[in-house]
Amino acid sequence: MIGKLIENIKKTNAPIVVGLDPMLSFVPDHIKKEVFSEYGETLEAAAEIIYRFNVGIVEACADLIPAVKPQIAMYEQFGIPGLAAFKKTVDLCREKGLCVIGDVKRGDIGSTSAAYAAAHLGTVEVGSNTYAPFGEDFATVNPYLGSDGVKPFLDVCKKCGKGIFVLVKTSNPSSGEFQDREIDGKPLYELVGEKVREWGEECMDESGYSEVGAVVGATYPEMGKRLREIMPKSYILVPGYGAQGGKGKDLVHFFNEDGLGAIVNSSRGIIAAWKQEKYAAFGPEAYADAARQAVLDMKEDISEAIGK
Amino acid sequence: MIGKLIENIKKTNAPIVVGLDPMLSFVPDHIKKEVFSEYGETLEAAAEIIYRFNVGIVEACADLIPAVKPQIAMYEQFGIPGLAAFKKTVDLCREKGLCVIGDVKRGDIGSTSAAYAAAHLGTVEVGSNTYAPFGEDFATVNPYLGSDGVKPFLDVCKKCGKGIFVLVKTSNPSSGEFQDREIDGKPLYELVGEKVREWGEECMDESGYSEVGAVVGATYPEMGKRLREIMPKSYILVPGYGAQGGKGKDLVHFFNEDGLGAIVNSSRGIIAAWKQEKYAAFGPEAYADAARQAVLDMKEDISEAIGK
Repeated sequence: MIGKLIENIKKTNAPIVVGLDPMLSFVPDHIKKEVFSEYGETLEAAAEIIYRFNVGIVEACADLIPAVKPQIAMYEQFGIPGLAAFKKTVDLCREKGLCVIGDVKRGDIGSTSAAYAAAHLGTVEVGSNTYAPFGEDFATVNPYLGSDGVKPFLDVCKKCGKGIFVLVKTSNPSSGEFQDREIDGKPLYELVGEKVREWGEECMDESGYSEVGAVVGATYPEMGKRLREIMPKSYILVPGYGAQGGKGKDLVHFFNEDGLGAIVNSSRGIIAAWKQEKYAAFGPEAYADAARQAVLDMKEDISEAIGK
Repeated sequence: MIGKLIENIKKTNAPIVVGLDPMLSFVPDHIKKEVFSEYGETLEAAAEIIYRFNVGIVEACADLIPAVKPQIAMYEQFGIPGLAAFKKTVDLCREKGLCVIGDVKRGDIGSTSAAYAAAHLGTVEVGSNTYAPFGEDFATVNPYLGSDGVKPFLDVCKKCGKGIFVLVKTSNPSSGEFQDREIDGKPLYELVGEKVREWGEECMDESGYSEVGAVVGATYPEMGKRLREIMPKSYILVPGYGAQGGKGKDLVHFFNEDGLGAIVNSSRGIIAAWKQEKYAAFGPEAYADAARQAVLDMKEDISEAIGK
């Protein structure tokens, strides 16, 4: 799947992923009113609202971007209807040819991790039928439980041609509490990075990159530089650009010399662009056009920074 | 919520939680045949099969146990219908007066962790209505992202009277890969244990225990002893008993002197008891009676070990 992601990045010339993390407060009133009048103020309505909002964003931006990253928590908070909207969003984006990175941060032991891997990247058997329950292309994985928790995902990656991004150094302010602590002279995130490299060796793609990528926050550019060296064949998924404070110039060292190797996420910076002063002229009705403009601006900011 | 769990433990005199982690291979054929003839070989059928299986187990065991721990991955692997079966299982168990520990191992940054906390322990607002999407009593939480990822759960615990169990030292063979690594002369799991104590101070219950518990595997009794000292006011949720190799005698040091402070999980050892030679006489039709007997045997094993 990393091969398809790279192909999409080259086609769009944009190492950008749009985080589809809709909150009801991001959604213009006209959508909410329309849906509430149809469904009442129900969980079904909340789910339909975020789905319709996503449809607008995806239709406006699909030709510009290689991938989307729906954050499942934002759907899970609306219960079963919310998760059904997650699944519909995954399907819509795949139909548009986008790579879908399920930001699920799952991770457990043995058979339980295998169940998560089947749910999100693989298939399950029911009698003589086979189903792909959620069907994302990539999933994010939490490494705290060690190789036992990650290996079942690798097995599914190999079997189904999918990929993962392992949390290595997250973008949040307290990520250092455990991740930065020194072990034998090296921070924990470097040890996790070394494991990512090792796990990736099992799942190499023809592109020269492995199916095992890493999440490293844009908010920690120096650590990104070091992790780029440790995991030269892993794609780095970079959150924290935009709303969380990461800038284009912070991103330079996340990329390899070939201009590949990293994909930068922006969520509210794109999908809630219409609420920013900069894009206010679009107005709420044209929220999707504001998102498109924000993608174009992000693309330019990153291009300038990485000189491509 | 820890107060209610302790009350349930005292009432049943059983520091035991039954892991409702159904796999289709645990379910007797008569249930599968019945459901397949009604639903076909669909995801809906798989979900209904595990739900009906759970109903049998819960009805047979509810009077003996204080709590259940459904593992959401086993439901998530059957997509939306599977997650609906998870929700129905949570509701059923709460109606029976059991504490429900959602084994969800969620964890993310800020607003995303808040969404997970709302989904599983709290409520969401849709217009002027409020919903509790999944409605568990406790959730398991992954600490890799640090306090940012845990605090939103604490907020919901305080607001809604719920609790969490933070992964500290997991029961799996490779848990040591990161968790045992030494930082300033102490293993990482001890640092996480210290944070659990600190987080717990914000959420103390009248019982003298905090709403912030810890997951520590029965497979590592020496580490359990040390962690018991570090977190005297945290309940320890102990997986790894039974099928994973933990024995009654391994559990002694997970408990405090008051005989409280730990609750031991068994999943397949109980729910798939009918497949063990020891309980084979029950036969598949009486799988729930086999589970009941396995609970009674586990209760005796633990009582003998902890001398209560």
